[in-house]
Amino acid sequence: MTQIQLYDATLRDGMQGEGMSLTAAEKLRVVHKLDELGVHLIEAGFPASNPKEEELFALLARESFVNAEIAAFGMTRRRDVAAADDPALRVLVDSFAPVCTIVGKTWGLHLEKVVRVDREENLAMIAESVAFLREQGKRVVYDAEHFFDAWRDDEAYALRCLRAAADAGAETLALCDTNGSSLPHQIAAATARVVDELGDAVRVAIHCHNDCECGVANSLAAVDAGARQVQGTVNGIGERTGNANLVSIIANLELKMGYEALPAGHLDRLTETAHYVDELLNVAPDPNQPFVGRNAFAHKGGLHVAGVRADATTFEHVDPALVGNHRDLLVSELAGKATVVEKAEEAGLAVDDAAAARVIERVKELEHEGHQFEAADASFELLMRRESGEYEPLFTLESWRVIVEKREDGKVQTEATIKLWADGERYVHTAEGNGPVHALDAALRGAITERHPHLADIELVNFKVRILDETKGSDARIRVLVDASDGTETWGSIGVSTNLIEASWQALVDSLEHPMQPGRADVAQAAAARPART
Amino acid sequence: MTQIQLYDATLRDGMQGEGMSLTAAEKLRVVHKLDELGVHLIEAGFPASNPKEEELFALLARESFVNAEIAAFGMTRRRDVAAADDPALRVLVDSFAPVCTIVGKTWGLHLEKVVRVDREENLAMIAESVAFLREQGKRVVYDAEHFFDAWRDDEAYALRCLRAAADAGAETLALCDTNGSSLPHQIAAATARVVDELGDAVRVAIHCHNDCECGVANSLAAVDAGARQVQGTVNGIGERTGNANLVSIIANLELKMGYEALPAGHLDRLTETAHYVDELLNVAPDPNQPFVGRNAFAHKGGLHVAGVRADATTFEHVDPALVGNHRDLLVSELAGKATVVEKAEEAGLAVDDAAAARVIERVKELEHEGHQFEAADASFELLMRRESGEYEPLFTLESWRVIVEKREDGKVQTEATIKLWADGERYVHTAEGNGPVHALDAALRGAITERHPHLADIELVNFKVRILDETKGSDARIRVLVDASDGTETWGSIGVSTNLIEASWQALVDSLEHPMQPGRADVAQAAAARPART
Repeated sequence: MTQIQLYDATLRDGMQGEGMSLTAAEKLRVVHKLDELGVHLIEAGFPASNPKEEELFALLARESFVNAEIAAFGMTRRRDVAAADDPALRVLVDSFAPVCTIVGKTWGLHLEKVVRVDREENLAMIAESVAFLREQGKRVVYDAEHFFDAWRDDEAYALRCLRAAADAGAETLALCDTNGSSLPHQIAAATARVVDELGDAVRVAIHCHNDCECGVANSLAAVDAGARQVQGTVNGIGERTGNANLVSIIANLELKMGYEALPAGHLDRLTETAHYVDELLNVAPDPNQPFVGRNAFAHKGGLHVAGVRADATTFEHVDPALVGNHRDLLVSELAGKATVVEKAEEAGLAVDDAAAARVIERVKELEHEGHQFEAADASFELLMRRESGEYEPLFTLESWRVIVEKREDGKVQTEATIKLWADGERYVHTAEGNGPVHALDAALRGAITERHPHLADIELVNFKVRILDETKGSDARIRVLVDASDGTETWGSIGVSTNLIEASWQALVDSLEHPMQPGRADVAQAAAARPART
Repeated sequence: MTQIQLYDATLRDGMQGEGMSLTAAEKLRVVHKLDELGVHLIEAGFPASNPKEEELFALLARESFVNAEIAAFGMTRRRDVAAADDPALRVLVDSFAPVCTIVGKTWGLHLEKVVRVDREENLAMIAESVAFLREQGKRVVYDAEHFFDAWRDDEAYALRCLRAAADAGAETLALCDTNGSSLPHQIAAATARVVDELGDAVRVAIHCHNDCECGVANSLAAVDAGARQVQGTVNGIGERTGNANLVSIIANLELKMGYEALPAGHLDRLTETAHYVDELLNVAPDPNQPFVGRNAFAHKGGLHVAGVRADATTFEHVDPALVGNHRDLLVSELAGKATVVEKAEEAGLAVDDAAAARVIERVKELEHEGHQFEAADASFELLMRRESGEYEPLFTLESWRVIVEKREDGKVQTEATIKLWADGERYVHTAEGNGPVHALDAALRGAITERHPHLADIELVNFKVRILDETKGSDARIRVLVDASDGTETWGSIGVSTNLIEASWQALVDSLEHPMQPGRADVAQAAAARPART
């Protein structure tokens, strides 16, 4: 099988998308996730365009990866400056990244109107920049910006630009449909010609955008025409209408076109990876996203469901498990009960049919109010426990109060006081915090750790807020998701209210009650004995 | 120019999408909007599948349209029943609709596993159903379900099914990629063969889904291969991953492929139509949607902005006005002086080079801390004003305090008190709210509306919370984005802090200070004088 090299541009081009922002630490997590998925090259950004990028490269330099190599991104030297004297190229050379991707001009219109560089000087800029990076021991991906516009304008010059990069030692030439203007037949024809002219000496790559809603199809058309590297972003994030969606590209390459893209057996990590990146970006995963969306394999109507039961290929174009997704049979009471019973068994609970029915009713009510249990396993387990009589409250609340105060000097102070009963005794505790949730968490722990010293080991590791019905302004319901961990296990809990503090409180309480439920220790041991989910 | 017939399936196939629901009256509004756009055929549903559909057809029967005809949707007769005796076909005949679209089987797998009909009986079902509708004076579109799977399975039988419909008098044969399994090269090859075999006698149509993220490209590939009708839905709504997006298809057919689709001069109604349907469906328009999305022609980097100023074709693949959209310049840490100067001009501010440089420095610092100005135009304008000396504070804060209290009875109460100075006078105000931000907002307004009664007209219309570095738990920085509106204009503001209340406070203050800045009234008038953005 022919291998296609996967080049991820999520952290550079993807970050151009509106509202896209990740800290250096979050970017590092994305890099590791993409490495685990099996992406071959990860474009991390320009090593010094701002403090955040510098921090990221410092972090990356200390890491090691299984499948992926890091590419630093820059551009050809400025005009009338020797490559060795160009500060931006020097930054690339000084970076630890073994691969440098540099972008350069191909299109006459840009040479005339944007950068005002003459055609011969542009060729020299390309050749000398690539050659300099090669001399300094870097492998080079050359991104030919606006290649397809250039091709339509002047094939011969577009080819000369590519040849300049190839002759100077570039390993890969990426044909970029920078403004997303092209359709598959145009991409296919131009790519085939380039492969024909230069494909023996270098790898040809494709870099598409989704402006015509053809980003994925364009990328596939290029591979069909001989491109052997595909550039894209996770979930197609990026400027304007986004980059080509690497998730769909990978699935199509492997499942529809017979190419090898990810390491064998890794394709079923696709859904998880796609959702992971969305979560970090605090973007709600698109339920209708091809291959990995919650609805991608959802079946409505009785005929569909019956057909799928008889033979899944009647209505499913691929087996959802291949991409790590699953079938969803909508509005199926029976499937619901089976799921509850299965979940209860996992938690070591005895849930009979009547209790399962009550759980389903309660879940329906709560989901209608904005709860969502997919990421809140602890809250779901507590719900099952309440319906099956195996729930033990940690304490009885008397009251809590949170005060946030901004003083004349501009300083903000926060304190929380809690009053509660545990095992017949009353506890009152006040704590300060750097925000209302922090203070409330501290006060609650302060009040009950004397009774349950164990809770001191439990840490809040993740805290998410999502406004439901955003357009209702400050009147909207708010969903808080909390992840807590004891260092070994991590569990999620949820709270929903129009009041953010109350929603946080609900999630906090669930996160602390969960590990203290009867029989949890046994469950934890059983879980540890099962093979880990990756 | 070759004319392509546009067939909209939004009201039938589109309604299969998760959460899609329209009343009969709303569907009627969609029909009129599509008629005004210039769509040729509108599939309204099965005339009697439920009371809502009956009501819709009763409404439609009384209307008249400029460009569109209504198609009623049904299926081939049941097996072993004469077409004239099939109740569902009788309903189609009784409907006022001049066109009937009926779907039938083509794929052996479905005949065997789903409907258990033998191949000859299936051919009879197709032929007799079409013939019956023709005898009753209807024009017929025949939808060949799972056509491309059938084609890969047994070309000869797939062709026989089509020929049965054509020979019986169908006007159009729609090749349906029902499960969205196909890629453009497969669609192109099969369509070309069908056009070659049957294209003289009937019109060949294409009906795609987006399961491989190729719905648009597949539709275009079919047209390229000779299909002369395209079926799709507005914005690609529909079951699973959606139908092919008719909006992008229309734009590509007209602007990229030289076909005639809409009536001359109607293409610039595309953006408005797309958003109109989203509004009725209560779906937020996708900002990244090709051609019609808010970001489809947004420019970020400084070089882009400069290029677009010199010649828009340097970075825009089509003129946004052609599809009724407009250009947008975004502000970000990557932006250059040109953007700042242009944004300042838009706001009616005189920002010189030194001030622009200071603004960029400040933006970089703030973005490093977690600010993000793309969706916070009001905060960005206030920042420019501060650097250029054209800022006027609305008040001087003495202090505020927010108290959230959960009482013994489980009730949660929230109040905020604010103390501030405006024009030399001190104002103190306390307000309750359903959450801490709501209460603080109410207190602030209570304190200053006496001085600025104008502010009572300003409403918070959107409130977003994003936790930066979520893994830091309750220690993380929090970004709050607020949209406010005076009913005419809407503006965005931002706040960042580890304390959610403080972050909300910053955004609230900006949202109220923005409209009160000196010269804002003139700017608003100038904006009103510009052609409206739809």
